[in-house]
Amino acid sequence: MTPRTAEAARVEEANQAFYDAVERSDLDALEELVLTGPLAETVSVVHPGWPVLRGRREVMRSYALIMANTEYIQFFLTDVEVAVDGDTALVTCTENILTGGPAEEEGEMGSLVGGLVVATNVFRRTSEGWRLWVHHGSPVMADGVDEDAAEDVDNGGEGSA
Amino acid sequence: MTPRTAEAARVEEANQAFYDAVERSDLDALEELVLTGPLAETVSVVHPGWPVLRGRREVMRSYALIMANTEYIQFFLTDVEVAVDGDTALVTCTENILTGGPAEEEGEMGSLVGGLVVATNVFRRTSEGWRLWVHHGSPVMADGVDEDAAEDVDNGGEGSA
Repeated sequence: MTPRTAEAARVEEANQAFYDAVERSDLDALEELVLTGPLAETVSVVHPGWPVLRGRREVMRSYALIMANTEYIQFFLTDVEVAVDGDTALVTCTENILTGGPAEEEGEMGSLVGGLVVATNVFRRTSEGWRLWVHHGSPVMADGVDEDAAEDVDNGGEGSA
Repeated sequence: MTPRTAEAARVEEANQAFYDAVERSDLDALEELVLTGPLAETVSVVHPGWPVLRGRREVMRSYALIMANTEYIQFFLTDVEVAVDGDTALVTCTENILTGGPAEEEGEMGSLVGGLVVATNVFRRTSEGWRLWVHHGSPVMADGVDEDAAEDVDNGGEGSA
């Protein structure tokens, strides 16, 4: 394995660890994976359908909220692509999500729902390994250009910039 | 202006130039703004509701398609936040979009439609200036956590990773 490939493997591990932490509702594990230091205030996350959350504190608060309101969530990652350039790494992937909300809630998340989300994740290399700087997830339209798009995702959005 | 602030201003200019090019349907201007070189094959773009497009060629083809099918599009950028770290720059912003499709088409894009999209854009510094490496745009839900969300966007998506 060339050094570059080994590095890409480490980035993919960090990416998988990120989803594992959310899957296990492990906020502590997530805390360790999200970038700290000078760029902490620039950490940015977009959950599907949400506005931009900026800054480590706001991002972590959103995950605490999501974890508290998600009874069950499972990610099957496909189309994982990794690019490493210096101290920056880009990962794009498809999140095949199976999720369910608390049974006692009246919302539509009570039963299990399948969903298809695409994600752009950017990691930064630190002395402690690769850390998440940017995460942007968005729902894929069922009638989009990809015929494999999930059937359970009900959403809109127009092609634009 | 400190060097860091000056650099952030240049990044913001590149970000604005990107939207201006799409607004003017200027594919040549867009060609110049999208990263070339060793990372060209890792350029990735997600249009709202689309799967990931990867590689400069596929990305440019999608913009040619969008431009051909968009009679009118206008972006008002708000919440523009820039972070620069070495040769990488992160921009997050809200795209307040006014758009319309060709009048002769039967699709629902015939009349002007307002939309709210949030974008994560990553730029790389090159000898010729800042160039777009990553763009991810996604629709914002009207009933999301942000009360100012657009009223015309009709979409779904659940909070997840």
